[in-house]
Amino acid sequence: MHVLVDLCVVPLGVGLSVSKEVAACERILQEAGLTTRLHAHGTNIEGDWDAVFAAIKRCHEVLHAQGVPRISSTLRVGTRTDRRQTLDDKVRSVEEKLSTSAAPPPGPRD
Amino acid sequence: MHVLVDLCVVPLGVGLSVSKEVAACERILQEAGLTTRLHAHGTNIEGDWDAVFAAIKRCHEVLHAQGVPRISSTLRVGTRTDRRQTLDDKVRSVEEKLSTSAAPPPGPRD
Amino acid sequence: MHVLVDLCVVPLGVGLSVSKEVAACERILQEAGLTTRLHAHGTNIEGDWDAVFAAIKRCHEVLHAQGVPRISSTLRVGTRTDRRQTLDDKVRSVEEKLSTSAAPPPGPRD
Amino acid sequence: MHVLVDLCVVPLGVGLSVSKEVAACERILQEAGLTTRLHAHGTNIEGDWDAVFAAIKRCHEVLHAQGVPRISSTLRVGTRTDRRQTLDDKVRSVEEKLSTSAAPPPGPRD
Repeated sequence: MHVLVDLCVVPLGVGLSVSKEVAACERILQEAGLTTRLHAHGTNIEGDWDAVFAAIKRCHEVLHAQGVPRISSTLRVGTRTDRRQTLDDKVRSVEEKLSTSAAPPPGPRD
Repeated sequence: MHVLVDLCVVPLGVGLSVSKEVAACERILQEAGLTTRLHAHGTNIEGDWDAVFAAIKRCHEVLHAQGVPRISSTLRVGTRTDRRQTLDDKVRSVEEKLSTSAAPPPGPRD
Repeated sequence: MHVLVDLCVVPLGVGLSVSKEVAACERILQEAGLTTRLHAHGTNIEGDWDAVFAAIKRCHEVLHAQGVPRISSTLRVGTRTDRRQTLDDKVRSVEEKLSTSAAPPPGPRD
Repeated sequence: MHVLVDLCVVPLGVGLSVSKEVAACERILQEAGLTTRLHAHGTNIEGDWDAVFAAIKRCHEVLHAQGVPRISSTLRVGTRTDRRQTLDDKVRSVEEKLSTSAAPPPGPRD
């Protein structure tokens, strides 16, 4: 089962900066061969369900092994059977509609 | 690895009522032997990481098999190494602080 | 606009226990006259959009004023125009389907 | 109060494609003068709390006015008092750590 996930990992008990832990997770996801797109509130991930969730489990395990005592992650998980869709497909689909609607309406305007 | 998850499953393409699909997931989680607490925006789940995520995968698989073409789930995932905590522990901990703060302050009040 | 929200507040920089901060938010929501249902991963809230979001803003403001340097909240926000629905309606709707499906099928069984 | 939000709007009752509604929200956020970064599972938003949440409310109102009967949104909401941080700061901070860790270790390599 193909899945698109958006993962946001929040480590607790390590102070206010969390970018070191987020970077560690990003590396784990990439080493797992998954397609990822980092953004300011998490990471888009694309892949097979089992591979994606094995990597997310590994993020929690590795952070705990590095001394993070508590982790609170949030995930958005999307699956569909009507068609195959990539991360880039989703963004492109919205951007196409944005560019269309921004164009001037057809026909004379005055 | 013990995990506390909050799962909210949103099926798309099945109309406006989603309670049938939510009930199907609830049954899957319970048949998996997991501790669950249903609420108005999802279900709290407690158990071993692999058992919990196998059941969540099964929710997506079963709903798709029942004809749901698209599913958008959101999860909150909590793990910690400092101590073992149950779903009921978490609620009790907040309720204790609420009852304490609502109590009259100690000492003479007049 | 009526809204059903599920709010989970995660304070950072205050150690591993977050129940004090969660209890403070719960009091703010209740003092705002909102209907709330506490669960292990957050709080269901029901009310008018402006009142609900004013109270959520106040949660962030009050926690910061109490010395919490960073807050990461997650919200699920539901609105609908087809019918009015309460928090309890949503839970009841799922529970009815669970009890129905658990019952033996009608008619002779042997 | 400055806030960084990640918003994912899921319209129900409009079929399987939701990009038209997501594009409508993107336009509302941009017309409100907010900084936004679209990704495959939502939109990062940066701005003043009141301006950001007024625009999010308007997303729900406009979609309902356009005929969407039910909307389920998820938000990640971040505020902090220790320092001012932009959306781009957050991504840059993680990317710096990723590039550092990817560099070859110091010392002779043969």
